[in-house]
Amino acid sequence: MELDLIIGIIGAILSSVSFLPQVVQIWKTKSAKDLSMATIVLLASNGTSWLVYGLLKDAIPLVITNAIVLFMLLLIIFLKIKYRKNVPA
Amino acid sequence: MELDLIIGIIGAILSSVSFLPQVVQIWKTKSAKDLSMATIVLLASNGTSWLVYGLLKDAIPLVITNAIVLFMLLLIIFLKIKYRKNVPA
Repeated sequence: MELDLIIGIIGAILSSVSFLPQVVQIWKTKSAKDLSMATIVLLASNGTSWLVYGLLKDAIPLVITNAIVLFMLLLIIFLKIKYRKNVPA
Repeated sequence: MELDLIIGIIGAILSSVSFLPQVVQIWKTKSAKDLSMATIVLLASNGTSWLVYGLLKDAIPLVITNAIVLFMLLLIIFLKIKYRKNVPA
């Protein structure tokens, strides 16, 4: 199997699952105070640019990976706003 | 200018600066409790796989971008460990 394909698959899987533990942690602790909103928005913009790139290039794996990343980041933004008034447990 | 190059440059810049606000926030608040270590480690592994890919392919922009991302993530891990006993202000 071509090196490109192997690293591409590893990168796609790692990117897709990366933010899952963060979503679960916020869900459990009901707290996201320490997360920088600027970082999340920058990561979401990055994901969006690669999603657009994948659509324009018909690179389906890139589209799927970045759609998942974007969904996770939007979920983190939603939870961070939802729990912003919570006092840490 | 080719579309690939434009999106590549946008992606490289966004990736490189994404984690800077998070590093600054941890530095200011001395707290990183809400950050998921699993997410940071997964993101660092992702950055490492793309760094290796860039080295093997002589794709210098990819190497530089992911070296910066990796440096930021390692800094976040260091700060998260350093401030783990801090009680949120």
